[in-house]
Amino acid sequence: MKDKSDIGLVGLAVMGENLILNMESKGFTVTAFNRSYAKVEKFINGRAQGKNIRGAATIEAFVESLATPRKVMLMVKAGQAVDDFIEKLLPLLDKGDIIIDGGNSHFPDSNRRTEYLASKGIHFIGSGVSGGEEGALTGPSIMPGGAKAAWPFVKDIFQSISAKVANEQGEMVVPCCDWVGDAGAGHFVKMVHNGIEYGDMQLICEAYQLMKVVLGLSSDDIQKVFAHWNTTELDSYLIDITKDIFAYKDEDGEVLVEKILDTAGQKGTGKWTGVTALDLGVPLTLIADSVFARCISAKKDQRVQASKLISGPEINFTGDKQAFIEDLRQAVLAAKIVSYAQGYMLMREAAKEYGWDLNYGAIALMWRGGCIIRSGFLGKINEAYVRQPDLDNLLFAPYFKDTVSSAQQGWRNVVAVAVANGIAIPCLSSALTYFDGFRTARLPANLLQAQRDFFGAHTYERLDRPRGEFFHTNWTGRGGDTASTTYDV
Amino acid sequence: MKDKSDIGLVGLAVMGENLILNMESKGFTVTAFNRSYAKVEKFINGRAQGKNIRGAATIEAFVESLATPRKVMLMVKAGQAVDDFIEKLLPLLDKGDIIIDGGNSHFPDSNRRTEYLASKGIHFIGSGVSGGEEGALTGPSIMPGGAKAAWPFVKDIFQSISAKVANEQGEMVVPCCDWVGDAGAGHFVKMVHNGIEYGDMQLICEAYQLMKVVLGLSSDDIQKVFAHWNTTELDSYLIDITKDIFAYKDEDGEVLVEKILDTAGQKGTGKWTGVTALDLGVPLTLIADSVFARCISAKKDQRVQASKLISGPEINFTGDKQAFIEDLRQAVLAAKIVSYAQGYMLMREAAKEYGWDLNYGAIALMWRGGCIIRSGFLGKINEAYVRQPDLDNLLFAPYFKDTVSSAQQGWRNVVAVAVANGIAIPCLSSALTYFDGFRTARLPANLLQAQRDFFGAHTYERLDRPRGEFFHTNWTGRGGDTASTTYDV
Repeated sequence: MKDKSDIGLVGLAVMGENLILNMESKGFTVTAFNRSYAKVEKFINGRAQGKNIRGAATIEAFVESLATPRKVMLMVKAGQAVDDFIEKLLPLLDKGDIIIDGGNSHFPDSNRRTEYLASKGIHFIGSGVSGGEEGALTGPSIMPGGAKAAWPFVKDIFQSISAKVANEQGEMVVPCCDWVGDAGAGHFVKMVHNGIEYGDMQLICEAYQLMKVVLGLSSDDIQKVFAHWNTTELDSYLIDITKDIFAYKDEDGEVLVEKILDTAGQKGTGKWTGVTALDLGVPLTLIADSVFARCISAKKDQRVQASKLISGPEINFTGDKQAFIEDLRQAVLAAKIVSYAQGYMLMREAAKEYGWDLNYGAIALMWRGGCIIRSGFLGKINEAYVRQPDLDNLLFAPYFKDTVSSAQQGWRNVVAVAVANGIAIPCLSSALTYFDGFRTARLPANLLQAQRDFFGAHTYERLDRPRGEFFHTNWTGRGGDTASTTYDV
Repeated sequence: MKDKSDIGLVGLAVMGENLILNMESKGFTVTAFNRSYAKVEKFINGRAQGKNIRGAATIEAFVESLATPRKVMLMVKAGQAVDDFIEKLLPLLDKGDIIIDGGNSHFPDSNRRTEYLASKGIHFIGSGVSGGEEGALTGPSIMPGGAKAAWPFVKDIFQSISAKVANEQGEMVVPCCDWVGDAGAGHFVKMVHNGIEYGDMQLICEAYQLMKVVLGLSSDDIQKVFAHWNTTELDSYLIDITKDIFAYKDEDGEVLVEKILDTAGQKGTGKWTGVTALDLGVPLTLIADSVFARCISAKKDQRVQASKLISGPEINFTGDKQAFIEDLRQAVLAAKIVSYAQGYMLMREAAKEYGWDLNYGAIALMWRGGCIIRSGFLGKINEAYVRQPDLDNLLFAPYFKDTVSSAQQGWRNVVAVAVANGIAIPCLSSALTYFDGFRTARLPANLLQAQRDFFGAHTYERLDRPRGEFFHTNWTGRGGDTASTTYDV
């Protein structure tokens, strides 16, 4: 083992352990540390045995064991624990050392920590790491941002352990890790990734619900549909595991997924994405609806009560099932395009707001492999942004415009069938609503502006006058002509 | 004029001026103050002339002019300006004096200010005031919360100037103002009011869009429809002014509303409602969609571009127009019920979270008159909560359950027609989606839990085991059996 470790990692939950094993397998020596030493011992005498991995009993020994500039990667619970470890590390580190937060931190925290640590002479990197426990072990997607001066020191480690996707010659050598941008940009992009993940998962659930309840398909049939979809444009990790999930039998030989309680939890990153979208004025409808869908699922008792009190239409499907399954595939594809278009819109607004220079094509490549939303689809997004880096909206790129246009008819049919049969498909349906709003030159917001001017003197612009000229009408003939500047009612 | 004024008001924008004139008309003497004295002079020599209203040139003279305990009402821009005036007032006030913030402050600020001023011996009241400029003059809805000890001192003024609605004997004596709750509860309830207002306005806009684009109705025809709706369960201020808006002709004799630009602004309270809902895990889909609808409307240039690039279906309506208009009315009514049910859910969650004891029936009465969302409908909500104060969900109350059930068929038809014709009706359609999700005992979130356990070892509960027992499956046969405690992927 080398005298000094190449990197140290704090936090021996599954992700932390697996990242260490991944780094070691690529030739790096790693020191492991954990708040409780028992976990370190268990790891060193277990999965890490015989490998170039050392355990540290104290934080002093941990820091002492690292080659300079020291690279300390935190894989601890987002929030206070990160700040606590930073404070413990600070007295032990030298100027130029690097602290990497690889947890699911909220990007404003990473903005703050980058600045705070810079003031102490320490480089901070806030890095999204996606791929779950298996990805951490075999090659995750890594999205680092923060102090760019530190990037050359961690680049080799991060790009070695990250997932790889094929280059133009088909060689699997393109790392799913690149520098994202300043301050909290890495965690921001990870947040958007997680939001998109919420949406992708919800879309799959809605397709399942329609196949099960409206078409009456068996779990085996549903398994076959997802297996087929995985050979089409929908080819992706999430469809792939869904196919495996429907094949997994419980001890009694029945399909396990049907025995699982239908209340989905959430731990925050999907919610953060929705909140950030509202803050930045970006209509991120699909991800927000996927978060709300989880909230509705969580109210199981109320739903059961409501199902007894309020009845809906009888299930009545008389069409061709195979044709409907293809419509459904088109609907999922179209809605997924809308979701990614919205996610990219959010990143563009954030880049404007925070002064980040984001490389949209590279972000698609980082997500192309290793992470939960990995898919061939992301290669198409990469191509679209490589061709036109300042693309205003993904829906304007030829491939996506054409795909969504030709998916339209099936998509509309799916939503109509769901509405007629009383099946809730929030994301498939709100994506269509967004699509229809987005391609409508004239929306009814003129009436809304008239209302706001009527009761609150908020003023309005006119179609027949240049933008930036504001008018107020005394609609009632009563009250004053004073336009409001202070109130929002 | 009395020696000392009953109350002082800071901030002479339209709302402030009108509130002063309203107070004076009810027999109270008021001192007016503004950052710039020119505004005070203009007011005193203008609309306030000959009335029991005095102007103050300095903040010292302003405070000096007030009877004790002094009541200072701030009608200034929410945010820093409120804190600035509080700091200016503090050295001049005595213990037991009262500062009222009547602006659109965010409720966490009112939580903070209540506590901060209590530490200085000053009572703080954060009060929502709704009704726009006309309401402020003739009787607004007032939603005060904060230091309850101050309520007896301002109750008479507030209930005198507030709107009144009928008691059981039909006498217009019930004030649309009552004590809401501790700390920021008043501003919280005002925030929810504003969110609901966003939703109500958007629903009306969507009905307008369908009548105009799908049915091809003229503005005059649309005016007649809204005039009729205002005689039904939809009777409300917003439908009333909509009817007036469609009757308002521009100088050239054409309907003004059709010349207004279709880009809706927003100043924050709708957004706050959505953010708060996400934070509290409440599926407030309709209000969130109404905020997103404004965001989409604001991207006019992109929409125009998209309308040229991406085509949708041709408009094709072959049904009975009168029947469809009635379906539309049912749809608006049902969606409105969903919106209020969601808003009340949000208030219940906030009450739990912040330890407020909210009187849900009284809140409906405060909104029943004076404010922008005033309507007969709110009388029904008041009745539902008077009958059952711990009502779990508004959709469980007999009147609302029955109304929404019988509106279902028309509602589904409206959404189906919009989907087939490519018209975006985000709120009418997402309300139906919510309704269908809410009344579904078994949602597909079991698959989502399986996915989360597959890639992130998040564990799941089972239908055949008690709640609170969590299971993890090693779906792939690879990886460990360790369940995740730290990660959200």
